Amino acid sequence: MKLLNDSDVKRIRTGEAVVVMDQVFKIRSEGKFISPPRMHMDSADGKIVFTPGGSLMDHVMGFRVYTTFGDEQITIVYDSRTGTLKGAVIGDYLGALRTGSIGSVSTKYMSNPDSRVLGIIGTGKQAFTQAITSASVRNFSEIHVFSRDNEKRKLFAESLNRVTGIKTFPDESSSSVARISDVLVLATNSPFPVVKSSDINPGTHIITVGKKSVKEHELDLDIAERSSVIATDSVAQINSYDPPHFLAKVVTKNRIVELSDIVSGKIPGRKNRDDITLFLSVGLSGTEVALADYLLNLS
Amino acid sequence: MKLLNDSDVKRIRTGEAVVVMDQVFKIRSEGKFISPPRMHMDSADGKIVFTPGGSLMDHVMGFRVYTTFGDEQITIVYDSRTGTLKGAVIGDYLGALRTGSIGSVSTKYMSNPDSRVLGIIGTGKQAFTQAITSASVRNFSEIHVFSRDNEKRKLFAESLNRVTGIKTFPDESSSSVARISDVLVLATNSPFPVVKSSDINPGTHIITVGKKSVKEHELDLDIAERSSVIATDSVAQINSYDPPHFLAKVVTKNRIVELSDIVSGKIPGRKNRDDITLFLSVGLSGTEVALADYLLNLS
Repeated sequence: MKLLNDSDVKRIRTGEAVVVMDQVFKIRSEGKFISPPRMHMDSADGKIVFTPGGSLMDHVMGFRVYTTFGDEQITIVYDSRTGTLKGAVIGDYLGALRTGSIGSVSTKYMSNPDSRVLGIIGTGKQAFTQAITSASVRNFSEIHVFSRDNEKRKLFAESLNRVTGIKTFPDESSSSVARISDVLVLATNSPFPVVKSSDINPGTHIITVGKKSVKEHELDLDIAERSSVIATDSVAQINSYDPPHFLAKVVTKNRIVELSDIVSGKIPGRKNRDDITLFLSVGLSGTEVALADYLLNLS
Repeated sequence: MKLLNDSDVKRIRTGEAVVVMDQVFKIRSEGKFISPPRMHMDSADGKIVFTPGGSLMDHVMGFRVYTTFGDEQITIVYDSRTGTLKGAVIGDYLGALRTGSIGSVSTKYMSNPDSRVLGIIGTGKQAFTQAITSASVRNFSEIHVFSRDNEKRKLFAESLNRVTGIKTFPDESSSSVARISDVLVLATNSPFPVVKSSDINPGTHIITVGKKSVKEHELDLDIAERSSVIATDSVAQINSYDPPHFLAKVVTKNRIVELSDIVSGKIPGRKNRDDITLFLSVGLSGTEVALADYLLNLS
């Protein structure tokens, strides 16, 4: 059994991770990608959570497991045709890279092709992987970043510039980032909206990675209502939120579409240049397994 | 993260494995051992099955995972106080050693202390671990083994003799094994009873490891009805059998007791020297985790 860790995962070219996720959503559109509900064991010491899944097309099955009492994640991959245990990936970078890559698949199919400015609100691991993977699907000339901590956003901007080679600016407010962005990523821990609807230009593609419940959400409701296409990587997962997701009462269920239906061409990612488009990132089960499988095949 | 395999597991002294399991059932009797129902993911390619569990007393949590499309098992162990991922044990010997050790805990508390002859029906991995662990709890002077394949039972007897140092005889029939045994282990794949009730002497302790459903069972119903104490490692697990377990209709639910209640002294393992006692081995969830933890601490 091969064993990979965060530093092995970091060696992958981000564009490849996006291609792997793009392929997953094509497989999903054909009904060949398995993403059952997560399962968990509860105890007085905490939970062990399993997110299983995989591809019937590639005969790759497995699961990610994490606990509420620790921060070490494991993703295990089997070849479900031969039964071979292919390997394990330890660490949480895989999950973040997977989420970033899925966001970037949404950007590929939903943003305007000539998008020039990428905006990032938040400076954590999720913000980082969203930014670096986005750079493989659009020819961004500038990245603007904001977080409340002045020092953190400077370091984050420097780090993004180093990795992507794109000019990156730490901005003084989320408004200034939002106003200049063609693609805007929210990846914060904020329970309240972090940008105002009036700061969002027509034509913007928005990704919300952070909180999305009716009680706590980083995205302004009005922005969602203005969006002409709202997609998610899993309608089932967002509809199983408890408390419900923040759009459950304001947007009819049918307005939220599957990213896989956009990737397959069944539904357009955007209709007009001036559309605001929105991607609700939930982390489709089984996608970590698909990315881990790709990495294990490389190694 | 430490990674152990079958050959690492084989290095443990069998007596130690029995002591670890003995301790698990003491912890279980205090309500501090967690054994939730198993969980599984189903797909067209097969199932991934999770058996989680652990000890709240020792703050050890984890799970075993196996698939129906392959034969590689993994057991993962966390320290649920620190959150540390302690390690993984790969392979199926751990599970067999765990089952054998639990059977031997039943022998320790339920068989007559002066038991002299151990009988084993079956020559597989489960039969082997039941035999070698039993030798640590009773001072057996002879082991008698039977399986339908003449060659296999000879090799099995030789192998048991080599490992235990006890005189071991391949017998010509299951009857001859049963008639001479003080402790009798059934560990076969047979869907039909493998020994006759008339071959069982008063005072025998019997362990049934193989099939136990109402449709397929290796133990004769009449032997169960003659048994004065019937224990299992998990009443919940045996009651969740589907189709139901073979005693569901003939033995009232309350006649099957928890091994943990015998280990803790709440219920006697036997009342009289001439009692037939019976242990229904089901493989309590979480016990693999406890044994894996012990091995990881040693290594």
